[in-house]
Amino acid sequence: MNLEQQLCEIFGPDACITEGKRLERYRIDQVGDEAYAQLPAAVVFPTHTEQVVRLMRWANQTGTAVTPRGGGTGLAGGAIPVAGGVVCSFERMDQIIEIDTENLMVVTQPGVVTSRLDAALQPHGLFFAGYPMSEDICCVGGNVAENAGGGRAVKYGTTASYVLGAEVVTPTGEILRLGGKRLKDVTGYNLLQLMIGSEGTLGLFTELTIRVIPRPVARAVLFAGFPDSRSAVECVTELKRISALSSVEFIDGRTTRATNADLPASDRCRLPDSADAFLLIEVDETDAAQLSHVVDAAERAVVAAGGAVVLRGSEPRSSERAWKLRKAVPWWTKRVAGRWHSMEDVVVPPAQVPALVAYADRLRTRYATPVAVFGHAGDGNFHITPMKAQSMSEEQWSSVIPQLLSELYLTVHQLGGTISGEHGIGRKRTRYLDIVLSESERSVMRRIKHALDPNGVLNPGVALDEG
Amino acid sequence: MNLEQQLCEIFGPDACITEGKRLERYRIDQVGDEAYAQLPAAVVFPTHTEQVVRLMRWANQTGTAVTPRGGGTGLAGGAIPVAGGVVCSFERMDQIIEIDTENLMVVTQPGVVTSRLDAALQPHGLFFAGYPMSEDICCVGGNVAENAGGGRAVKYGTTASYVLGAEVVTPTGEILRLGGKRLKDVTGYNLLQLMIGSEGTLGLFTELTIRVIPRPVARAVLFAGFPDSRSAVECVTELKRISALSSVEFIDGRTTRATNADLPASDRCRLPDSADAFLLIEVDETDAAQLSHVVDAAERAVVAAGGAVVLRGSEPRSSERAWKLRKAVPWWTKRVAGRWHSMEDVVVPPAQVPALVAYADRLRTRYATPVAVFGHAGDGNFHITPMKAQSMSEEQWSSVIPQLLSELYLTVHQLGGTISGEHGIGRKRTRYLDIVLSESERSVMRRIKHALDPNGVLNPGVALDEG
Repeated sequence: MNLEQQLCEIFGPDACITEGKRLERYRIDQVGDEAYAQLPAAVVFPTHTEQVVRLMRWANQTGTAVTPRGGGTGLAGGAIPVAGGVVCSFERMDQIIEIDTENLMVVTQPGVVTSRLDAALQPHGLFFAGYPMSEDICCVGGNVAENAGGGRAVKYGTTASYVLGAEVVTPTGEILRLGGKRLKDVTGYNLLQLMIGSEGTLGLFTELTIRVIPRPVARAVLFAGFPDSRSAVECVTELKRISALSSVEFIDGRTTRATNADLPASDRCRLPDSADAFLLIEVDETDAAQLSHVVDAAERAVVAAGGAVVLRGSEPRSSERAWKLRKAVPWWTKRVAGRWHSMEDVVVPPAQVPALVAYADRLRTRYATPVAVFGHAGDGNFHITPMKAQSMSEEQWSSVIPQLLSELYLTVHQLGGTISGEHGIGRKRTRYLDIVLSESERSVMRRIKHALDPNGVLNPGVALDEG
Repeated sequence: MNLEQQLCEIFGPDACITEGKRLERYRIDQVGDEAYAQLPAAVVFPTHTEQVVRLMRWANQTGTAVTPRGGGTGLAGGAIPVAGGVVCSFERMDQIIEIDTENLMVVTQPGVVTSRLDAALQPHGLFFAGYPMSEDICCVGGNVAENAGGGRAVKYGTTASYVLGAEVVTPTGEILRLGGKRLKDVTGYNLLQLMIGSEGTLGLFTELTIRVIPRPVARAVLFAGFPDSRSAVECVTELKRISALSSVEFIDGRTTRATNADLPASDRCRLPDSADAFLLIEVDETDAAQLSHVVDAAERAVVAAGGAVVLRGSEPRSSERAWKLRKAVPWWTKRVAGRWHSMEDVVVPPAQVPALVAYADRLRTRYATPVAVFGHAGDGNFHITPMKAQSMSEEQWSSVIPQLLSELYLTVHQLGGTISGEHGIGRKRTRYLDIVLSESERSVMRRIKHALDPNGVLNPGVALDEG
């Protein structure tokens, strides 16, 4: 039997692609650089866990690499297959199995798009707090595999803190049922948290049990401009003293202006000319009085730091307008710089945010290239994004970028931070792992990988270096 | 060189015991049954990480078992050595290294007693929320090794959710520096969370970085009696709807009365005769108005459920009196039943708490033996504690208890729960692991253990079964 026949036997002809245009879609994720693309030999679409088990047994027998994929929205190449391997796409395992309003938990298949899960929770007054900013396109399984963060992690934490249980298929095709509908569990090792964030290299999630919380009823946004980066990030420290704000996002002035100009006229914000850095501050509360109390305090902190309010409002329209601008930033960098940009995801201790942002400003001069600086200032996680200067040749860019990233990563390490807060290592950062992890640390990771995946068939080349 | 000389070379003569009465203290922890005790050949007291590294290298060379120990307050035998092995006690690594008020983090050695850490945080208005009820005697390193819970986990979560970083010595004597002072980190596998709760079988913690939070300034307690268990646990569901209460503890009527009578007269509560179940409800808030608002609502819920308030107060004296009674319960079971009791730690989904408590009531009749039922009702975690009836012989008890535990564990599993929420598997529950974990799940745990500890020298016999 050839590959197609073997996979057809497991998945049926309707759930297996082995040629043509549709295969092309699975060559790459949102990593941003087409050079990473690899054509798989096949894409399969399981609808049942047992098919995933059979796939992994077959993969071990034949030595075929399997790469799991959710929405394909990852930003580090974690869902890019090995050439000639198989992509296991979870897009047809898209059922919300149970909304358990008594336990405040939801049981879901991995292929559910995040915003669809949230929409299903809304009528019950519930909220899935651990989601990333790509909520309209990313899948829950991918969020868990990456331990996604996002715009509200500063208040609510990352995806990992909401996952209570999972059904996982191991690289060798065993089914593990980890955790469950319980708020505490110390029965054996925490395999669940080991699997979460392992970027699809230690197991394939086939079912998830997720904790949800009462939906905040009142939400307001404050969007403010500051004379410079320094005053903006110093304001972040003051803002965090007021209350647990649900978002504290930073965007540098040039990037804010360019992204704003790129939006349809009706969506644009009116930005003060003098501002060279912006903060998007969001507050959510369970009652309206507390909400306006906190927003007032935040506004006072903004003004005290020399900032000017661009937009303040608790009706959805203000909130949406500010978020639209913030969310458009990565798309703007992509549109302007094409594959010649690198969206980074460094994270530093909160107290080192001013030092990191000052360093990012210096990067622009040193490498004579634009660097967009934006991200989750409240938790020290910044998407510093170098982009090729128009004057730079593609060759120059290719030789500059590894040097720039090495320097950035080393600086972040020296500030007590690390190279990825929420996007992961994927295929993009494995070569830089030794900047932040010792040989002992990487070796323990490789030993665990080998213990679970002795034939190295599950998502090889992702998350770990070769050693 | 004999064992003593070898260890002396690493630790110096003052930091190594190989004979005499002081050795006896390290035969057992707080597991409650002397039958588990094992005499180690030596106890060593590192003061530096490098000594722990040398110890583990030596252990691998000589095939000697090493058991890490913090306060020795574990309740499942996780700190009990192998006969002839070495206990590595962290009691002299007891320095609080840094209270970082800017990042809201603390860096500490593992041997710091939990309440001492909290006392050091208090002047800074900070609070270490992830601590167990044995805070006056347990050490921070042990809390982390066990992923301790406790009376306030219902609001604040368990220890694991506060640990951001750790220095860990692996079983083969490598130093890992995992995580750090950052609020997000997806750089490689989550070895930190794998180590946490692994009961000292995958590594020895030599330094911890812990997140702390602003200290709640207002705290009040409501202690209430209910006509029966059912009305008390049904009230728990209502109480949890009001707000995030910092504690919702349950104690059955007989246990409450007996423990109360056992206290010095000046410490006793006046208990209503009609009550057959009690709840200790604690509320903490950052302002006093909100506090009394929540306590009022809680009192209304208690009364609506048929309960009567025994004690209500926000001054420390009321709070201390109620907690004194609650904390005395395990000591009362120990005093009354000696080694012929078994303090359990089962956990079920919150919605299954009424079913669990009803089942525990039935256990008393079925096994004709007293069963104390108390614990953290708010998160479904109960210390169901069978005690030998006076009429029962020690032989009868020994033959009944494994049967009783197997039945309890199976029931808990069928309710969607598990056999330990915060105390761990230790040496006590390894033989029961197969009731709640499949062979695949246990096998993956053993493979990870073997990958990190190929010679099986670190805390053998704890947490995992033999397979």
